[in-house]
Parts: sequence; C-alpha cells; structure tokens
Amino acid sequence: MTTSPDKKLWGGRFAEATDGLVELFNASVGFDQRLAEQDIRGSLAHVAMLGQVGILNAEEVVQISGGLQDVLADIRAGTFEWRLDREDVHMNVEAALRERIGPVAGKLHTARSRNDQVAVDFRLFTKEAALDLADRTRALRAVMLAEAEKHLQAEVILPGYTHLQVAQPILLSHWFMAYVAMLERDEGRFRDAAQRMDESPLGSSALAGTPWPIDRHATAQALGFARPTANSLDGVGSRDFALEFLSACAILSAHLSRLSEELILYSTFEFGFLTLPDSHTTGSSIMPQKKNPDVSELARAKTGRVFGNLMGLLTVVKGTPLAYNKDLQEDKEGVFDSYDTLSIVLRLYTDMLPRTQWHAEVTRAAAERGYSTATDVADFLARAGVPFREAHEVVGGLVGLASRSGRQLWGLTDAELRAAHPLLSAEVAHALTVQESVRGRRSFGGTAPEQVRDAIDAARRSLN
Amino acid sequence: MTTSPDKKLWGGRFAEATDGLVELFNASVGFDQRLAEQDIRGSLAHVAMLGQVGILNAEEVVQISGGLQDVLADIRAGTFEWRLDREDVHMNVEAALRERIGPVAGKLHTARSRNDQVAVDFRLFTKEAALDLADRTRALRAVMLAEAEKHLQAEVILPGYTHLQVAQPILLSHWFMAYVAMLERDEGRFRDAAQRMDESPLGSSALAGTPWPIDRHATAQALGFARPTANSLDGVGSRDFALEFLSACAILSAHLSRLSEELILYSTFEFGFLTLPDSHTTGSSIMPQKKNPDVSELARAKTGRVFGNLMGLLTVVKGTPLAYNKDLQEDKEGVFDSYDTLSIVLRLYTDMLPRTQWHAEVTRAAAERGYSTATDVADFLARAGVPFREAHEVVGGLVGLASRSGRQLWGLTDAELRAAHPLLSAEVAHALTVQESVRGRRSFGGTAPEQVRDAIDAARRSLN
Amino acid sequence: MTTSPDKKLWGGRFAEATDGLVELFNASVGFDQRLAEQDIRGSLAHVAMLGQVGILNAEEVVQISGGLQDVLADIRAGTFEWRLDREDVHMNVEAALRERIGPVAGKLHTARSRNDQVAVDFRLFTKEAALDLADRTRALRAVMLAEAEKHLQAEVILPGYTHLQVAQPILLSHWFMAYVAMLERDEGRFRDAAQRMDESPLGSSALAGTPWPIDRHATAQALGFARPTANSLDGVGSRDFALEFLSACAILSAHLSRLSEELILYSTFEFGFLTLPDSHTTGSSIMPQKKNPDVSELARAKTGRVFGNLMGLLTVVKGTPLAYNKDLQEDKEGVFDSYDTLSIVLRLYTDMLPRTQWHAEVTRAAAERGYSTATDVADFLARAGVPFREAHEVVGGLVGLASRSGRQLWGLTDAELRAAHPLLSAEVAHALTVQESVRGRRSFGGTAPEQVRDAIDAARRSLN
Amino acid sequence: MTTSPDKKLWGGRFAEATDGLVELFNASVGFDQRLAEQDIRGSLAHVAMLGQVGILNAEEVVQISGGLQDVLADIRAGTFEWRLDREDVHMNVEAALRERIGPVAGKLHTARSRNDQVAVDFRLFTKEAALDLADRTRALRAVMLAEAEKHLQAEVILPGYTHLQVAQPILLSHWFMAYVAMLERDEGRFRDAAQRMDESPLGSSALAGTPWPIDRHATAQALGFARPTANSLDGVGSRDFALEFLSACAILSAHLSRLSEELILYSTFEFGFLTLPDSHTTGSSIMPQKKNPDVSELARAKTGRVFGNLMGLLTVVKGTPLAYNKDLQEDKEGVFDSYDTLSIVLRLYTDMLPRTQWHAEVTRAAAERGYSTATDVADFLARAGVPFREAHEVVGGLVGLASRSGRQLWGLTDAELRAAHPLLSAEVAHALTVQESVRGRRSFGGTAPEQVRDAIDAARRSLN
Repeated sequence: MTTSPDKKLWGGRFAEATDGLVELFNASVGFDQRLAEQDIRGSLAHVAMLGQVGILNAEEVVQISGGLQDVLADIRAGTFEWRLDREDVHMNVEAALRERIGPVAGKLHTARSRNDQVAVDFRLFTKEAALDLADRTRALRAVMLAEAEKHLQAEVILPGYTHLQVAQPILLSHWFMAYVAMLERDEGRFRDAAQRMDESPLGSSALAGTPWPIDRHATAQALGFARPTANSLDGVGSRDFALEFLSACAILSAHLSRLSEELILYSTFEFGFLTLPDSHTTGSSIMPQKKNPDVSELARAKTGRVFGNLMGLLTVVKGTPLAYNKDLQEDKEGVFDSYDTLSIVLRLYTDMLPRTQWHAEVTRAAAERGYSTATDVADFLARAGVPFREAHEVVGGLVGLASRSGRQLWGLTDAELRAAHPLLSAEVAHALTVQESVRGRRSFGGTAPEQVRDAIDAARRSLN
Repeated sequence: MTTSPDKKLWGGRFAEATDGLVELFNASVGFDQRLAEQDIRGSLAHVAMLGQVGILNAEEVVQISGGLQDVLADIRAGTFEWRLDREDVHMNVEAALRERIGPVAGKLHTARSRNDQVAVDFRLFTKEAALDLADRTRALRAVMLAEAEKHLQAEVILPGYTHLQVAQPILLSHWFMAYVAMLERDEGRFRDAAQRMDESPLGSSALAGTPWPIDRHATAQALGFARPTANSLDGVGSRDFALEFLSACAILSAHLSRLSEELILYSTFEFGFLTLPDSHTTGSSIMPQKKNPDVSELARAKTGRVFGNLMGLLTVVKGTPLAYNKDLQEDKEGVFDSYDTLSIVLRLYTDMLPRTQWHAEVTRAAAERGYSTATDVADFLARAGVPFREAHEVVGGLVGLASRSGRQLWGLTDAELRAAHPLLSAEVAHALTVQESVRGRRSFGGTAPEQVRDAIDAARRSLN
Repeated sequence: MTTSPDKKLWGGRFAEATDGLVELFNASVGFDQRLAEQDIRGSLAHVAMLGQVGILNAEEVVQISGGLQDVLADIRAGTFEWRLDREDVHMNVEAALRERIGPVAGKLHTARSRNDQVAVDFRLFTKEAALDLADRTRALRAVMLAEAEKHLQAEVILPGYTHLQVAQPILLSHWFMAYVAMLERDEGRFRDAAQRMDESPLGSSALAGTPWPIDRHATAQALGFARPTANSLDGVGSRDFALEFLSACAILSAHLSRLSEELILYSTFEFGFLTLPDSHTTGSSIMPQKKNPDVSELARAKTGRVFGNLMGLLTVVKGTPLAYNKDLQEDKEGVFDSYDTLSIVLRLYTDMLPRTQWHAEVTRAAAERGYSTATDVADFLARAGVPFREAHEVVGGLVGLASRSGRQLWGLTDAELRAAHPLLSAEVAHALTVQESVRGRRSFGGTAPEQVRDAIDAARRSLN
Repeated sequence: MTTSPDKKLWGGRFAEATDGLVELFNASVGFDQRLAEQDIRGSLAHVAMLGQVGILNAEEVVQISGGLQDVLADIRAGTFEWRLDREDVHMNVEAALRERIGPVAGKLHTARSRNDQVAVDFRLFTKEAALDLADRTRALRAVMLAEAEKHLQAEVILPGYTHLQVAQPILLSHWFMAYVAMLERDEGRFRDAAQRMDESPLGSSALAGTPWPIDRHATAQALGFARPTANSLDGVGSRDFALEFLSACAILSAHLSRLSEELILYSTFEFGFLTLPDSHTTGSSIMPQKKNPDVSELARAKTGRVFGNLMGLLTVVKGTPLAYNKDLQEDKEGVFDSYDTLSIVLRLYTDMLPRTQWHAEVTRAAAERGYSTATDVADFLARAGVPFREAHEVVGGLVGLASRSGRQLWGLTDAELRAAHPLLSAEVAHALTVQESVRGRRSFGGTAPEQVRDAIDAARRSLN
C-alpha cells in the first residue's frame, strides 16, 4: 500500500532510506509538538473552507473535522504518541488522523503545503505569545502602579542615583513610576508586533499560491486573523514577525534586568533598602546566614538567553534566499524559550513586588548621606542671582570640604558656609532637607508629590 | 576667574587633575559632535521657554539665542574648533557660546542638566533617523513596485525556490512583490518606533525634575515632539527608543541580506538570471574577467555590523541601574553607524534595481528545467479524484525516472506516463507548461498575473 | 526530624515557604541532571580524599561511596526519580543517598559547597565536550582529507570563486584541503581550551577555601585534572572556560556554515556540481521533484543557535560581581546545546561527504565557462615582458569582447586576439586550458597537483 | 595612456563609470589606511623575494623598495594624501608609488593579488594586536599582583560575596589574586591565537596560488611569520584568526566588566570600600557632590561594543562561500575597535588601581556585619562531630534570630546560643572573628594569608 501513514510522505523520488541520524537531526517534533493546538485549529479552518468552496463534500468535512477533534482530545489528555519518524507535528497529526479515519485524511492536504501550515501555526503561536506578554507586562505595570500609590502618602524618600552615586532625593513612588513608563512602552511594542503579524499565510501553499479555488479570507477570519497575507512567497518565507517579537522580548528583558539589578543592590546588607519576601529568596547549603535574591539574579541572567535567542534567529535569517528553506525550522525554539522565560519572570515580579518590604528610614538616611541636596543649594544660589556655573563651583567646594571631614552639608559650620559664599548660612543648609528638595521639584514629570500624583492618575487612566 | 570656559565645569570638588588618557577615554566629542544641530535646537527651545516663564529676561534670551545661532553657523560652515578637553558636544557649544557672549551664557544651563540635554539631542536624532529610514524604505519599495509592474505584462517567469531547489514557477513580478510586502512592514516598524519615542525628556533635569517653574510642554512642542516624557527618571535613564530603532534596523538589514543573497546568486554564471549595471559592480585587480556584485556583497556583510550594534547596546543596557550612568554614553555610535549603513544601502538598491537587466529567457528555462510543474501534475490527478497523497507519490516516481535519465517531465514517453497512472499521457504533460502553472495559481496572494495585478494596485494605493 | 532529605537544606533561616513558581524558576534539575555522572564522580573523589586525610573513617567512606555507586546505577538504568522540589542534580543525588544510607550521607558535604560542586561538575563536562568536539572535528578532517586524496589522481577541476564569480580553476582536492586547514585550527582551539580549563575547582568551597585539612591535589588527580585552581574565588566564580568553549564552537560553526552554503549551492540545478546521497536529503510533501539538502540547510541554520549561545553567556557574565551569583546557573544549557548541535553536525558531515557524488564534467565545464583562465593569459603576457597592469587591461578588454558576444576566450578569432595584443594568437588562447592553468600554479600551497599532493601528505602526518 | 594611476585598475572590462555613491560605499581607505605600515612591509618583503628568485632584477628591486620607503615616510609624516577614488590602502600606496617611480611600480603586483595582500596586512595587524593585548593584560596582572602583595601584610579583610550577599570574609589580596588568575588565562588566549594565526598568506594570490616561481617561505620569514599558510584558498578566504582574536577580546572584556562592576559598587556611598583617584573620576555639571566612576562605567559599557564586534564578524562570515568575497572587507573595523578599546581600558586600569585607596576599616566592618562567620560556627560544630547538615540548620536558626533582632552572632546571649546547641557558647561566638575565619581557610587556593602568600609567589614566578 503506497499510502501507509508510516511511510515518509515525500518518499516517492527516493531510492535510499533516510539515515537514522539524519532523521533525528531533521525531526522537529521534539519541539514543534507545542504547536499542536494551533496546527489542528489551522486544519479545522482549512477543512471547513474546503467544504464551503466545494472541494470537499459535507461528509468528508465531518469525517476529517471529527477525526481532528479526536486527535486534539488525545493530545490534550496526554495520551497521544508522538513519533520521531513522523518528523514533525504536522505529519504526526496527519498520520494519526489517517489511522482513525482512513484515506479520506489525505484530502486534508488538498491545496495546502507544509510550508504554509507551519507558517500559520507558528504565526498563531507568536501572535498569542505577543498578546499574552502584553497582558502580563500590563499586569506587572498595574502592580508597580499600586506600589507607587502605596508609598506616595508617606512620601517615602529614595536616593536617586546617577553613576550609582547618590544624586538627588526622589520619591520611591517616582522610582516605581519610571518602570511603569518603561513597561507601558514594552506593552506597546508587543501590541504593535501582534497587529503587524496579524495576517494568515494559509493558502500560500508551497510558495506560489494554488490553482484550487480556495477562500483565504474565510480561513483568515476563522483563525482570528485580521486579513490574509498579500503575497504567497512572503507568506511562507518571511520571519520578521518572529524577529519583531524577539526584539520586543529583548528590550523588555533589558528593562527587567535593570529592575533586577536595582533590587539586588537594594537588598544587600550595604544598601539595606528593602527585604525581599522569604517566598522569593533562597538560602545557602553552606552559609546559613544567606538570603539570596535568586529570583532577581536569575531574571537578570535570563536576559542572556533572551538576547541570544534574538541573535540566533537574526543569524538564521541572514542571507537566506526566498522562500522556505529548512533553515527556518530553527525559528521556533528561541521564540518558545523567550516567551516562557519572560512569562515566568513577569509573573514572579508581579507576585514579588507587593510582598517586598521597603525600609523608609534606611532609604531616607541614604538620601541624606549622599550630599543629595547639593544641587538644591546651588539652585538656591542661582535663584538669588548667582550665575549657575559659579553656584555649582561654590557648592562643589563645600561638598569637598564636608566629604574630607566626614560630614554632611548641614554639618558644616556657619562660618564655613559663609566663607564659601556670603549668601549661605547654617540656616539655609538646614532648610534644604531631602523632603524639601523632593517637594520642590514640581516640573512636569518631576518627583514632587503632586506631580507623582498626577502621573499615577494618568497611568491609571491608561490602564483602564 | 572660576568660570573660565576651559576649566572643567564640574571641577570644584576635585583636588587632582584628570589624567590625560582618562580625558581621551571619557570624551565623546569625537562622535557626539554629530548632534550639534540637535543640541543647539534643544538649547534654543530651552532658552525661549526660560524667557516665556520669566526665568530669563528678554535681553538675555536674545543674547543667548543669537550666540547659539552664531555657533551653529560656524559649525555648519566647518569653521568650529572642536576641542577634546571640552569633553562633549554640549560643553564645546557652551564654552564657545561663553567666548562670544560672556558670563550670561551660564544662564542657559539653568533648570537643565547634561543628562536631559543628551537625552533630548539623541532622541531628536534617533527619531529623525527612524523617519528618514522609513522614507528611504518606502522609496525602495516604490522602485520594487515599479519593477513588479514593468515585468508583469510580459509575464516574465522566475523559478520559485524552496531549499534553493526549483519548486514552482512564479512571476518575476511576484518575487518583487514579496520584497514590497517585507519593506512595507519594515517601514511600519520605523514609524511605530518614531511615534513611541516622540516624547521630549527636556526638563527632566539630572533625574528628578527641577524646582524652576519651567514649561516642558512648551519645549516639547517647540522641538516637534508630541509630548513631554511623563517621568523624569525614565526620561534621562531609558534607552529603549534606541534599542527599538536598532531592532528595526536589524530586521530591515536581515531582509536586505536576503535580497542581496538572491541578487548575488542570480548574477552568477551558473544562474545567469540577471546582469547588474556596470555602475554598481567592480572588477578584479588580477582577474580581468570578473564583474563582482560588490554592492550586494557589502550590503549582505553589513548586516553583521547592524546586528552587532544592536547586540552592543543591549549589552550596555543589561543590568545598569537607574538613572543615568556613564554607560549610556555608549548608546550613540551604534545608532549612527546603523543609520548610515542602511541609509546608503537603501539608496544604492533604489538606484541599482531599475538598472538591473533580467534575462527572461534564462529564468524561464531555469523554471522549466527544475521539474517545477510536478505539483501541477499532482494537482491534475487530485482534481480528477486521486487522493492527493497518492497523486504525490505517482509524480514523485515520474520525477525520479526523468531525473535519472536526464529528461524533463514532458520528455517522458506516453507509455511511461500511462504506466505511472492511467490518467496521465504525453498530452497532459505537454499542457502543463510553466506559463500555465503560473496562470493557474489564482488564489488570493498567488502568482497568477491577475492576482499580482491586484497586489500591485493595492500596494500602489498604500504608497500614495 | 531536622534532617529530612526533603526539607530544603538551607531552610533554617526562613520563616515562609518558597513559592511554587519560584521553586520551578530556580530549579535547574531539568537540565543539570545531565551532569549526574560528573557529579557522582566528583563526590566519589571527594569522599575518597576525606578518607585519606582522616576527616571520614574507612567505614564512612565505604558506606558513602557504595551509596553513590548505587545511585549512579539507578540513574544509568533510568530508574532514578528526579524531583523538582530537590532543585538540582546535587540535591537530588544527596537526598537519594540519604534515603539509602541514612544520616552519614550528610558527611559527604563536609568541606564542600554547592558552588564548588557545580563548578567541578560543569568543568568536567565542558572539558570532555571540548575534547570530544576536537576528536569529531579531527574525524571530519580525516574524511575530507580522504576525499581530497580520492579526487586527486583524476585531477578533478572545480571553478574557484571569488565574489561567487568564477575566478580561477582549482582542483576539487584543493578545495577539500582548504577545509582541512580550517578544521585543523578548529581542533586546536578546542584542545587549547581543554588544556586551559584543566583545573579542579573542588575544595574552593563556597568561595574562600575551607578550614578542613583537605587535599585538593588528590581530588584534582582523581578527577583527571592537571592541577587544582590556584584561587578559590576564581575557582567558583569564573566561567571563561565555558565562554572559550562556546567561542570555539561559534568559529567551528561559522566554518561549517560556509561548507554548508557551498554544498547547498553546488547541489542546485543551476550549479549541478554534486549529488547528495538520498540518505541525507529529504523530499517535499507537495512537490514531488524536490531533493532538499536539509542537512546542510539545518547545519547552516544551527549556526544561529551556536552564536546565540555564546552571546547569551557573554551577556550573563557581563557586569556580574564575584564570586558565585545565581546568574551563573544560566551557563549550562547553552554549552549543552552547542555541544549537542556540533556533535551531530560533525557526525552527519563525516557520514555524508564520502557518499556525495561529484560530477567532474560539470565542474570542469563550469570552470571553463567563466573565463577562469583570463589571469593565465595576463600572466602569459606579463612573463613575456608586458607590465602586469597593462596585461591586465588587455585581457579585461578581451573578456568584455567575448562576454558581449557570448563566447569563451578560445572562441575569439586570431584577428581579435592579435588586435588586442600582438603577442596573442588563437594558438596561445587554446593552450591555456583550465587543466594547464591548474598545473601551473606550483607555488607553495597552490593548486597544482604536486602541491596538493604535498599538502595531503603533510596533513596526513599531522593526523597520525 | 592605459596605465594612468588614477584609472580603476580593473576598469578594462567595464563600459560604464562606477557610480559615485558606489565608490563611496565600496571604498575602504577610510579605515584600512591604518594598515599602511603592514601593507608596505608586505610589499617590501614581496619585492625583495621577487628579486631573490629572479622575477625582478636588482635595479627594479631597488627602485620599488626605495619608492615604497618614501611613501611610508610620507605616511608617517602625515603628508600622504589618501584618496577615496583609489578605494583602499593598497591602491593608494600603489598609485603613489607609480607617481614617484613610474611604470616599474606595476611590477610590484607580479604574482600577487589584492586578496592575499589584504590577508597578509590584516593578519600582521591582528597578530601584533593580539601580542600587544597579551602584554597589556600581563602589565595589568603585574599591577594587581603588586596590589595583592601590598595589602597582604596588614591582612586587609574584604567581605566575600555570593549573590552579592556577604558570604565569608576573605583577604583583599585574595580578591586581587582572583583577577590575576583570570588575566593570566586571558593572556594565554591572546598568545594561543597569535600562534595559531602566525602564518603568511602572501603568495596565495587570488585564491589558487600562482605560476610564478615565488618563494613563500622567504616572504613569510621576512615578515616574521612562523610559516606560510598551507592552502591558498584558505589563505585568502579564512578569517577565523580575526574571530579568535575577537573572542579573546570578548572574554577579557567580560572579566573587565566584572572588575568594573565591583569597583563601581565598592565606591558607592553605601559600600564605601574604596576611593577612586580624582584623576580617574569626574564630576557632574549639575550636582557638585558627585564623584563619578566614569572610567569603570565606560569600561563596563564598552563590553557592549566588544561583544557586538564579535557578533558582527560572526554574522559576516556565516554562510559565505569560499574564497574571498567582498563581505570580508567588513572584517577590519571591529578588530580595530576592539583592540583600541581594550588597549585603553587595560592601560587605564593599570594606572588607576595602584592609586585607588582601600578603606580597611570599612571593608572589615562590612565583613563582620554580614554574619560572614556563620559557616565557621557550622564548621566548628561539624568538627565536634555534629553532622554538617544539622550544624547548618542550627546556625541558620541563629542567624535568623540575630537578624530579626538586629544583632550579630556575637551579640547573641550565652543562653540563646546554648539553646540552639549545647556545644555553643558566648565564648565560642567571640572566638570566631573574621580574622580567625580568614586565617583558618588554609586549603590550597584558600584565603588564609600563607596560602595567598604562596599564590603570589607562584604568580610572580609565572610573570618573570
């Protein structure tokens, strides 16, 4: 029988058996079985359309659709036997279908190629992944927004750093809102990507379209795509949708690595700004005192794989001629891995941040310690008419003086202050607390409480 | 005098001179002088706003603005002396301004920091670069669309490849339209990026905003930004706008590398599909017969630097805490380089493609040579009721037979064809020409002339 | 009981249970179980040494060693139950040991930390992987050398390309020898890497060494390392050994991608230089005529993941402070993946190349077609005293003339040749065959048969 | 005159002028002029050899060599006019030579191609760059070794971290020695790379060797190479030497990024472990109190470009067929850039580290603060016979108790200690100082002073 489901479906031309190692190398079922749901949804849409346009009769449609549903049920139940010799998810499903419903299964492949089948499966997955990460990014954003709100009333002060040197005091809420802004753009990138890839390649066939009178708009609609792809060669041969997804992942991951770095620093003994929840830290097998910020460390480290996945697929695509090449089989694992990685990292941070305790007295003391109001002194002088550059030099000298003698600015004597500039005095120095500094920065987007209040309100509106 | 323009402007705190090598290492003026226009535009907007809100008086505004215009004129004329000891574009411009207008120059720095100055300059550049590459991508798209149109009437046939093996015949116009589709998405990525980064960080000051009563909406508007950034920490510390730009560049570059690869292949002796214009090829110093597709080779190769620039900035951002760190100085060169690279590659292809000669008889012969109508034979059988999988096997056997004896499908004897399947005959084989194959593929997005015609019309509408 | 094997071994300090998702995120047993053999070898060496120096008594050593051997037997038999809640390979093995031999199992951890345990396991693996890839690279080299030898006698001609334009004829054997040279250096990189990493970190303990009187030289020797690492902080915290391994993989992969690209090109209809064995190609589900070079395509594509793995680990290591950070857990999967990928690609090419048929008449005709002897004509003139640059121009003109009229150089008339230069004639043109061109290039390392013979002999000596 | 030095030397075949933008795009003289010295050295070796084997006569050799020396003198003096229309360094030098000595200049190109010329120039550069970075790495190593020695006598204590949580106390000298170990391997990688690439491609000619009776061993020797390359195709077409160089750069850069990160952390207000020299830090234009670790930040950030350069060239090489393709022109800038970057970073650290002040009292206090002797307590119990895992739990509980009440281990009461384990007491807790902890870790490679002493001695021997 020439149509045995176990015979390679393209075996007609070949005199020699495929080498075992080659089979192993070529087979993608080890990872693309993850696309089984998408594959069967694609087949169901295809077979329904074949019925609508009269290529298949109603009975064939019922038989094939029923068979596919059964196969899907097995897969969901975990009872489906995935076979390496059947190469990929498509051939596994098709062979199982044939075992159930007999030769009519072969009609499913009418007017379709594995090239457009894999393109549609993978695009469905990637689009859903993009939308899911958009949602998860949004959820983390909501949590950070809630944190910003939580700490606003008490005006919890955090040292703002540049060069990791204390620069100016800010509100902790303001710090949270910086991440809210980043995450909003991250979400936007995922949604833009999802929208741009929202096209069904189904019906592109091998690369040139098909002479069968199919209805690509119908399958596109059935699968929830906005439209069919406009060019069959592009439909099966392009992978920029996956590259755009991976780029959005890489940028989000860069943001999460910055957050992770800050949480790791802030949870050291030396900074002492926060305590991570026991639930999200681990200990050491040899050092009983350790409370390791593993989640943040791993989140930071996993940036590596997310970057690597992007670089990997860019490399794959580089210099490959149109249309489908086997090279493109290498497009999936990186997308799966980046998706899984970010999905879990986003969930962990969404859980962890509300359970993280901030030590307001420590962060405030740190802000005071670092001469963070020096700019305010300079601004005080500038507002009194001293050219800013001169004011800057005066205060720079005072900081040097204080720093060499281990004091803060308000620890300088009245005489020292007046010697630096006649407009200065102990009174002035004492008035310039970190709280006043923060309250003063009322420019739009600044750290003053009412500005942060406005920013929170605006962010909340954009979330709803 | 403490405010000498040549003294380091932050020198007050420091007892020891900066080491010469350190100065060289830290200085960015070697590359950021490219932002001079943006820097001065930013300063002009800032000073005008300082006047509007009453921080500066009218005379000061006039003096400073006039001085900045003079400095800009010098820079444009190429007579400006860039000095390494003045570190960066900002300090060079400010020092030159002070030399012209005296101490009032110092007031320009009121309510502003180098951190937001560099952020605004670089964002202006990157936004303009994104829009410019969007336009250039569009121009190349228009050229490819025109090429598609040019070759449509004659129905020039090209072999469609998968795995670089001849698969099915397509129209050359269809091939062009595949790139039109890719380039349309590339343009979309640049425009989305430009829109997302369309926010002015000016007024974020060092990181926390400023106590001066500035108007950030006014400066944003003056600089052509849609709005000010909503968080000062984010405004000075984020670089995802540059990462998104570099990602769009990398994906576009991947597309151009595919185009380049195909042009290189098609211009070999072995393929012989096209002749590149002399103007865009070079010869060999030792082999007089060479006509090298240098432009395409370099375009393909430059994908490396574009990927490298993306990977470079991702690495820079990874794990850096908020807000500004000196690390972020490393954000610019890769953006400049990717922009310049793609700008020239896009222009070269826009020039070169219309001057490239396609050899229709060669491409057609190649399409015929590669058994590219085998699918059509299988489809013929399938439409006559033979299950597709069986039809596939029958034709596979015929191709094997023909291939082993160095013939095409229409070179098989009537007896051989009938032996393979009773429905086949010499007559059938001869009817299945590449032209007929192409004309038959009338599914939406397929390669049939009327489909390509529709695609061209739709693409033209989207361009206008 | 405080020492239940199922309790987290660092749980003493913690008030709250680890979150389930955190456990999943932190656990590495899903991939590091691959290090089970190395882990148990490390433990066996450690326990033997603890016995030698008197920290454990003989009975304890016997008990623990026996238990470890039993665990190893289970793992090899596939009957070992890996548990996610036991985090990693180390804790899984230790807990299983405790279940078998009771509390004495706890003594195995004396004077050792997970940090040095993981460092020693992973280093053993990476060193073995490097040596294995060195061997496999060598095996492929031997096969390519044999191919070079096989085709030498017949002086099979291949067009030599630059810019993918036919440049000069070479021997097919010479082409093989180019890859032999590359692979020899690749092997060298793996061996250098293996030698540089040939140091045992065992006994570095958490990071600072240990007060226990251990003998690190003894464990190093028992594990086959050349020496112990000289610094405990470096021993547990460095991963340059893995980076060097991944770099060698990336470079080898780049070489294999070039080979793959050439094989893909050479097996097209258009080139037609070779036929890949059926065993190493596949067909198409829709196009019966296809014989796709899947192995080469995948080998080319997998360069992406190998590059990505390198970039991934570089990113992980970037900016992490000493010594161990959880980040370093991300070091393994990329190494496993690159090793597996290259291991199989090398094996496939080792199998495939001897079964690949080269079509000598096609390659020779291609070499003739491409004006590849033009340099020889120029050299002929130059040897007759014509300045080389002038000779080059003369021949360039002749190639232009021939090319425009679709002829080869020997198709030019005597009159045309003499008009170009008085020293030229039809006789000269005919004497300059590709065979003569090849035979003439007798410079060391050139393509003349005796040079290739010498190169083969030298390469064979270096292999033995 | 057909041999005008300004005419494109390969122009004979071409009917149409090169497009201006193409010329700009193709020209490499903007960056490869950096290879002028290497280019002329290569030409001098080539011409001398041509004289030795009788291809040129003595007078010609003198003329050409003299002319080349003159050109070199001009280049060194900065008076050489580099011309874009002459494409690259080779053509610029050759044209200038012809202007000086007339048509005899053309003979220099006998038996040589630009392909092997660029290969030899670039290999000379890369080899020298590798050896130079090896030397500079060694110099930094010597400085770090000296620092290790300087701080040994006083037994300066540093907290050893894992997960950036204080783990165990170590000697500052031990920390320096960890970097000494890394840098030693980095140096080894550069030397191995230099050795592997120590082959002269000169005489490979375009790709196939040459019929001229040249002596490649003579030119190899004259240029200081160990041997000529064994295969001409490999000689002109391979770039793994550059990739290996870039890999060694990337790994070194990763190490330097870790050092930079630690120095940045240690110089924060929060850690306060060290003061960087004023000469190597900068201030802020707006915040007078800042003392920014710019050198370390930039050194950390420049890791991005070094990684990017590697990824860039890997991408270039991926999938390019043999032998020379224009793609390979993209090999140089990344190598120049990585070399320059690391050269300056290494010099800066070599200068900066000896001028960095460590605050021994602060680092010691930090080590004490972090429960870093907890392991020692566990070890104390273990040595007294308590199974290690149980000991670990006991101490974990004590740390939890102390931590919750803001105390150190020695701040626990005798009662609390005895309650945790009968063998513990206040006396025991007090004996376990960080100094004692450090002194106790006498395992080979451990942090005990005598171990570090031995390591320093061994490292010093390996440096001399």
